[in-house]
Amino acid sequence: MRDCAAELLEDVQGRADPRAIAIQRVGVKALRYPLQIQDRDQKIQQVAALCNMYVSLPPEVKGTHMSRFLQILEEQQGNPLSVLNFQELILRTRDRLEARDARIEIQFPWFISKKAPVSGVSSYLDYEVEWVGILQEDQYVQELTVHVPVTSLCPCSKSISEYGAHNQRSRVSVWIQNRKPIWIEELIAVVEAEASSQLYGILKRPDEKFVTEYAYDHPKFVEDMVRDLALRLQRDSRIARYSVASENFESIHNHSAYALIEGEN
Amino acid sequence: MRDCAAELLEDVQGRADPRAIAIQRVGVKALRYPLQIQDRDQKIQQVAALCNMYVSLPPEVKGTHMSRFLQILEEQQGNPLSVLNFQELILRTRDRLEARDARIEIQFPWFISKKAPVSGVSSYLDYEVEWVGILQEDQYVQELTVHVPVTSLCPCSKSISEYGAHNQRSRVSVWIQNRKPIWIEELIAVVEAEASSQLYGILKRPDEKFVTEYAYDHPKFVEDMVRDLALRLQRDSRIARYSVASENFESIHNHSAYALIEGEN
Amino acid sequence: MRDCAAELLEDVQGRADPRAIAIQRVGVKALRYPLQIQDRDQKIQQVAALCNMYVSLPPEVKGTHMSRFLQILEEQQGNPLSVLNFQELILRTRDRLEARDARIEIQFPWFISKKAPVSGVSSYLDYEVEWVGILQEDQYVQELTVHVPVTSLCPCSKSISEYGAHNQRSRVSVWIQNRKPIWIEELIAVVEAEASSQLYGILKRPDEKFVTEYAYDHPKFVEDMVRDLALRLQRDSRIARYSVASENFESIHNHSAYALIEGEN
Amino acid sequence: MRDCAAELLEDVQGRADPRAIAIQRVGVKALRYPLQIQDRDQKIQQVAALCNMYVSLPPEVKGTHMSRFLQILEEQQGNPLSVLNFQELILRTRDRLEARDARIEIQFPWFISKKAPVSGVSSYLDYEVEWVGILQEDQYVQELTVHVPVTSLCPCSKSISEYGAHNQRSRVSVWIQNRKPIWIEELIAVVEAEASSQLYGILKRPDEKFVTEYAYDHPKFVEDMVRDLALRLQRDSRIARYSVASENFESIHNHSAYALIEGEN
Repeated sequence: MRDCAAELLEDVQGRADPRAIAIQRVGVKALRYPLQIQDRDQKIQQVAALCNMYVSLPPEVKGTHMSRFLQILEEQQGNPLSVLNFQELILRTRDRLEARDARIEIQFPWFISKKAPVSGVSSYLDYEVEWVGILQEDQYVQELTVHVPVTSLCPCSKSISEYGAHNQRSRVSVWIQNRKPIWIEELIAVVEAEASSQLYGILKRPDEKFVTEYAYDHPKFVEDMVRDLALRLQRDSRIARYSVASENFESIHNHSAYALIEGEN
Repeated sequence: MRDCAAELLEDVQGRADPRAIAIQRVGVKALRYPLQIQDRDQKIQQVAALCNMYVSLPPEVKGTHMSRFLQILEEQQGNPLSVLNFQELILRTRDRLEARDARIEIQFPWFISKKAPVSGVSSYLDYEVEWVGILQEDQYVQELTVHVPVTSLCPCSKSISEYGAHNQRSRVSVWIQNRKPIWIEELIAVVEAEASSQLYGILKRPDEKFVTEYAYDHPKFVEDMVRDLALRLQRDSRIARYSVASENFESIHNHSAYALIEGEN
Repeated sequence: MRDCAAELLEDVQGRADPRAIAIQRVGVKALRYPLQIQDRDQKIQQVAALCNMYVSLPPEVKGTHMSRFLQILEEQQGNPLSVLNFQELILRTRDRLEARDARIEIQFPWFISKKAPVSGVSSYLDYEVEWVGILQEDQYVQELTVHVPVTSLCPCSKSISEYGAHNQRSRVSVWIQNRKPIWIEELIAVVEAEASSQLYGILKRPDEKFVTEYAYDHPKFVEDMVRDLALRLQRDSRIARYSVASENFESIHNHSAYALIEGEN
Repeated sequence: MRDCAAELLEDVQGRADPRAIAIQRVGVKALRYPLQIQDRDQKIQQVAALCNMYVSLPPEVKGTHMSRFLQILEEQQGNPLSVLNFQELILRTRDRLEARDARIEIQFPWFISKKAPVSGVSSYLDYEVEWVGILQEDQYVQELTVHVPVTSLCPCSKSISEYGAHNQRSRVSVWIQNRKPIWIEELIAVVEAEASSQLYGILKRPDEKFVTEYAYDHPKFVEDMVRDLALRLQRDSRIARYSVASENFESIHNHSAYALIEGEN
C-alpha cells in the first residue's frame, strides 16, 4: 500500500492507466479501528469497528491513495458517529479521495442493558451491527443491519410430541435501506418482539421458568419468524427496502433451518 | 425442522398461511455433506461440501419440507457433480419440493497438483470453490466462484526503495455467471497467470529463487490485478457477468488493500 | 520458507546458530492437504486435512528444511492413514528431518451414515476429528479428539416450568491419549449414548417426535454430561489420559454453558 | 442454564451427586461483555471482551450457579480492570461461587497509537490480548498473551535471489506467567523490536520506503524470530514461564511457517 503526499518521490500510482477500465471499489478492508458510536439516548459506546472503506476509480487513473482512508478515521477520533451523521463520513471520504463514488462499511458489537422478565435483574446482551453508507453518482443510500440472537421453538415438534418441543438459539438478521433515520435499538426491539423468546444475559430461576414457558407458548417456524417480521417492516414508512433472514441452529440437527424475505415499501 | 411424509401425524406446516407473504428462500443452511466433484479431466474429488439449499414458498403455503433437501443429497451419493450436470440437482430440488424457484449453493476445498517452476517437484495447492445454481421463474443461472491465493508485490514500494519491495499473500476471488460451461481449473489458471507470482506447496531452493525474482519482476498494485483479470474475462464469450476482487493481506499493515471490478459481457 | 536440497546454493539455514537456544517446534502450520483416512470397517474417506507438522531443533542448528514436511505428505498419497499406522508418519517425519522430536496434528471432517431412530432413513452426520502424534525423546504418544454435536436439555428448566424445557445444540469434545488403538467411531458412539439426544441429518416426522420426547426424558446439566462421560472413559483400560468438555450453546442466552473434566486411568 | 437464588423453586442442581466425580472447570464460555481495561498510562479502553469464567466443583455437588458469573461482570461495570487488579476478579468469583478453584479468561482487541517512522503521522494499530487468572488450591497464577502482527522477511530468499526477497505478515504470540506485573505495552514493544519490521496503520511514502528497506536489512527466519524473543524474555526476572511462537503467513505458499519455544526463568 502506498501514499501520495510526498512530491519528492515518484508518483507511481498517479500515472495514467492504459487499460481504460473503471474500478467500482478500491480501498482498505478488514481494518480494525477504534470508533465512538452514539445511540438514541445520546449514550456513547466505544467500539473496535471492522472497517471497509472504498472509492471508485475512473478508467484513466492508475491508483488511489490508500493512507488517506486511515487519516479520515484518525480525524474522526473524538467525534462520535450515529445514524444521523454517518453520511458525512462518506462525503468526506469521497472528497478527500477525489472520487466520484464512495462506500464505507463498518461492523461492530453492540451492547444493550436488559432487565430479566420477572426478577428485573440487569445485564448486557450483545448484538452485531453493520452500517453501510453508499454514495454513487451523487445518490446517497444508508443501510443498517442488525443480527439479533433469539430463541426459536418448533411448532411441529410441539404439535406431534406428547411433551416437550425442540428449541434452539437462532440468529435473525434484518437489513434495511431507510428513507429516514432508524436507530439500532428500534430494529432490535422489533426482532425481539417477534421471537419465540428473546434472550438475556442473567436469568434468575423465576426468569428461566418464564422464558421456558413463554417460548413453549410462542412456537414459530423459521417461515413464521421472517413473515411476522416482514409484516412489521412493511408498515414502517421510514424503510425503503428490507430483507429479513432467520438462521435456526437446530438442536436436533447439525445444520440450520433458514428463511429469507426481501421486500420494498 | 420437520418432515411431511407421515400422514398419520398432523401436517402443521401444510396449513394455509393467513399473512399472504411469499418467501424467496427457505431451506437448509450450513449443512456439511459428502459429495463427489468431477473436474475437466474426469477425475473425481471427494469433498466435505458446505451446502445451502433453498426453495421459494408461495404466500398461501405455511411451510416447506426440510428433510427432502437432505434426501436429495443422500440420493446424489455415488453420482459425481460437475459444472455440466449441476443444473439437474437444482431442477430435482425444485420438483421434489414442489416449488417455483430453487437455489443451491455449495462450497468446497479444491486441490490441484502443481509442479514447482524449476525443480518440477509435484505438490498439491488448495483453493476454495463455490457453485451456485439458481432457478427462478424457469430461468436457470449458474455461478462459479474461485478463491485463489497468490503473491502480490507492491510497485510503489519497489520504485521508491533502494532495495527490496513489500509483498504478501493475496486472495483473488473471481465470480462468474457463464453462458457455456467453464471448468474450475480454467478460472484458476487465468488468475495465476496474472499474479505477481503464483503459489506452490513444495518449493525447492532454485524454485524459491525463481518465484522471488519473478515476483520482483512482476509488481502489481491491487488495482492492476483486478484490471488485468477483468481484461481477460471480458474476452471470454462464455462469461455473461463477472466480478473480480483482490484482497492483499499487506505485509506492512494489519489491514488489507482491496479492489473490485464488476462487469457484463 | 526454504529448502536444503540444492547444494549449489548457499545453505543459509544450515549455519551454526550462536544463540544456543533449542526450539521445541518448528515446521509448517495451517497446511491443507488431501489425505485418505481408513476407519474401523476398512472404508476410506478422502479428506481435506488441516495439517500442522513440527520437529524439534537443537540449539546449534540454525534452521529446519520446510519443504520436506510437504514431501512426506506427498509421498503419503495413495496410502490411507488410520489409528493403527499414524505413528509411522511421525517416525518418518523425525527421520527425514533428522530431528530428535516430531509432532503432527491433523484435523478433518468425518462423516458417519446414521439411520433415523424410527423410520430408519439413512443420512450422513458430520463430526470434527483431530489426531495428534507426538514423538519426544523416543517416547511416542497418540492423541485422538472427537467433537460431537448433540442435543442437551436443561433439567432445571424442565423441573421449574409447567411445560417445556429449553434445549439446544451442544458440542461435546473428548480428548484421549490411548494405550491401545481406539477408533473414531467408538469414541463418537460413547458420546452419543450419553447425550439428551443424538443428532441426525434426516428426521421424518415420527423420528422428530421420538427425539423430542427422548430429549425431554433425558435432561442433563452440562455437569451431568461430562460426569457421565468421564465414568465411561474411566472404565476403558485402553485409555491412559482423557478430558471431556461440553459446550452448550444455550437457547435462552447468547453465551455457552461449559464444563470440563480431566483424568488419568 | 440456571440460577439458585430463588428458594421458592426446587434447587435441582444443589442436590448431592452420586457419581462422585470432581469437575475441574464449570461455568460460562464465549460470553461477550463490556469491560474497561486500564493501561500503563492510566488510560482506559472500553472493550467488548470475550469471557470464559469457570470454577471447580467438588464430587458431591451436583451443579454450579451460572447466573452468578454474569452478576460478577455486571458489578464490575465502572471499575476498570488492569494487570494490577485482575486477581481480585478471580478471588471474587471463587468466593461468590463458593468454590475452591476459579479461572477467568478474557480476550479483547487492544489499540496503540503509533507514529510512522519518518513522517511521524499518528494512527492506531490493533493487537489481540488475552488475560488468564487461575486460582488453584490457593495458588494464584496470572497469564498474559499478546498477539502482535509484524513483517517477516526471509533470509534464504534474500540470499539466493539476485534481487528481492519474499516477505509477509506474521503473527507473533507471546505468552507469559509473571511474578511481577508486566504491562501489555511492554510485551508488545519487545516483539516489535525483534521483527523484520513492525507494522503501522498510516504510512506516508517516505515511511513506506523506510519500512521496505528496514525489513530487507533485517531478514529473519521464523526460527530467528522466536530465538531472539526467547533471549529477551529470559533476561526479564519478572517472568516465571513463557512461550513465544511466530506464524508466518508465507507469501509464496498457502500455508504458514511456524516455530515455538517454551521456557522457564
